[in-house]
Amino acid sequence: MTLKLYDLALADPEVRLSPFCWLAKFALLHKELAFETVPLRFTEKENYPDREHGKLPILKDGEELICDSAHILTHLEKKYKNNPLINTDAERAAADFYLAWLGASLYSSLSPMMFVRVHAAAHDSDKAYFRQTREKRLGGTLEELAAKPGLKENIEASLKTLSAPLVRHKFLGGDTANLSDYMVMSPFMWQRSVTSETLYDTPQAVAAWQERMLDLFDGYGRKAKRAA
Amino acid sequence: MTLKLYDLALADPEVRLSPFCWLAKFALLHKELAFETVPLRFTEKENYPDREHGKLPILKDGEELICDSAHILTHLEKKYKNNPLINTDAERAAADFYLAWLGASLYSSLSPMMFVRVHAAAHDSDKAYFRQTREKRLGGTLEELAAKPGLKENIEASLKTLSAPLVRHKFLGGDTANLSDYMVMSPFMWQRSVTSETLYDTPQAVAAWQERMLDLFDGYGRKAKRAA
Repeated sequence: MTLKLYDLALADPEVRLSPFCWLAKFALLHKELAFETVPLRFTEKENYPDREHGKLPILKDGEELICDSAHILTHLEKKYKNNPLINTDAERAAADFYLAWLGASLYSSLSPMMFVRVHAAAHDSDKAYFRQTREKRLGGTLEELAAKPGLKENIEASLKTLSAPLVRHKFLGGDTANLSDYMVMSPFMWQRSVTSETLYDTPQAVAAWQERMLDLFDGYGRKAKRAA
Repeated sequence: MTLKLYDLALADPEVRLSPFCWLAKFALLHKELAFETVPLRFTEKENYPDREHGKLPILKDGEELICDSAHILTHLEKKYKNNPLINTDAERAAADFYLAWLGASLYSSLSPMMFVRVHAAAHDSDKAYFRQTREKRLGGTLEELAAKPGLKENIEASLKTLSAPLVRHKFLGGDTANLSDYMVMSPFMWQRSVTSETLYDTPQAVAAWQERMLDLFDGYGRKAKRAA
């Protein structure tokens, strides 16, 4: 086996939370590539395969190290031609749009909800680092960020927009999932790995699509371990 | 000529403002169908071809009347097979998403800015009707709605999201425009028809795409008359 994905883990090394690592895993699964994952925690930087790059995912493909989910997607699509992640230029443009929309619309409200919960499930030796980096990035304590008014309502408004294509299509990719599905599913895998709480209401069309996404690849997403 | 599009007009019958009519016109142009347009004002309901349906666009195709831009798109795509508006199911799902996003993100802030300006450019006999219907729908006077804080900032945030695909692609459709481009361009044609004011900052990638959209079909959009 030549493909190895370095995958972010919580206190329990089997709980793999990172949405960007999930995106890379979905892409590997879509292309039917055999791979193994290597769990690494937030502060285990000395074990990260690229000393210069303290973030995951990192993919090791033979002797080559590819850092960052965007580069991993490009690498896989270029090197492994079977099962393309995207079929037309319009689909690629749409994937760019979905990704930008996720950042502006979903992550901006989901992240403040999630960070306290990630902190709670993180390894003791990761907690201080996680708190410090996230509080610096977002400007407030994790608890203040999670209590910001309107987060639930913003997420629900975003999911209403997302439900429009999913009322009429099985996947954002049409009859089968494509890159856009994997991008948009990633934050929900993040949430699912870290917490079982119901944080907001999910429209039926989105919930049904999430179930279909969990079923893909012999239930890879559904079988993934969740934090206790 | 058998195709006739009933097209909403301002005080100047040559100024055609409606974004939904623009969407229908772009679809007709994309399919290289010959059509004529018939200008009708907001309150000229007695001249609307379907007495039951007091909204435009309405398309007359032979003896058939098709009301509502969504139905017109479906009709054209089904009956006229050349130059499809969309090529794959994933592209269709993306068009559904762009349309929902437009409603939630762009129209929600652009409409309050536009309504006072449409009112100013409307025919005298339309002004009271336009004010009444829009004020009832949005709950406030046109002037209050236009003065709501954050409209400019919300639009600019939306356009930042839109610029993501347009940095890397000529059109949302890739190398050529597709239905998603026509949907997203429609509100900008609305704005362009009604006002020459700069209402907000437009990212360079979006501005360049708008210029390409205005150039399509021998400059049909660019040549369209604007309110004085």
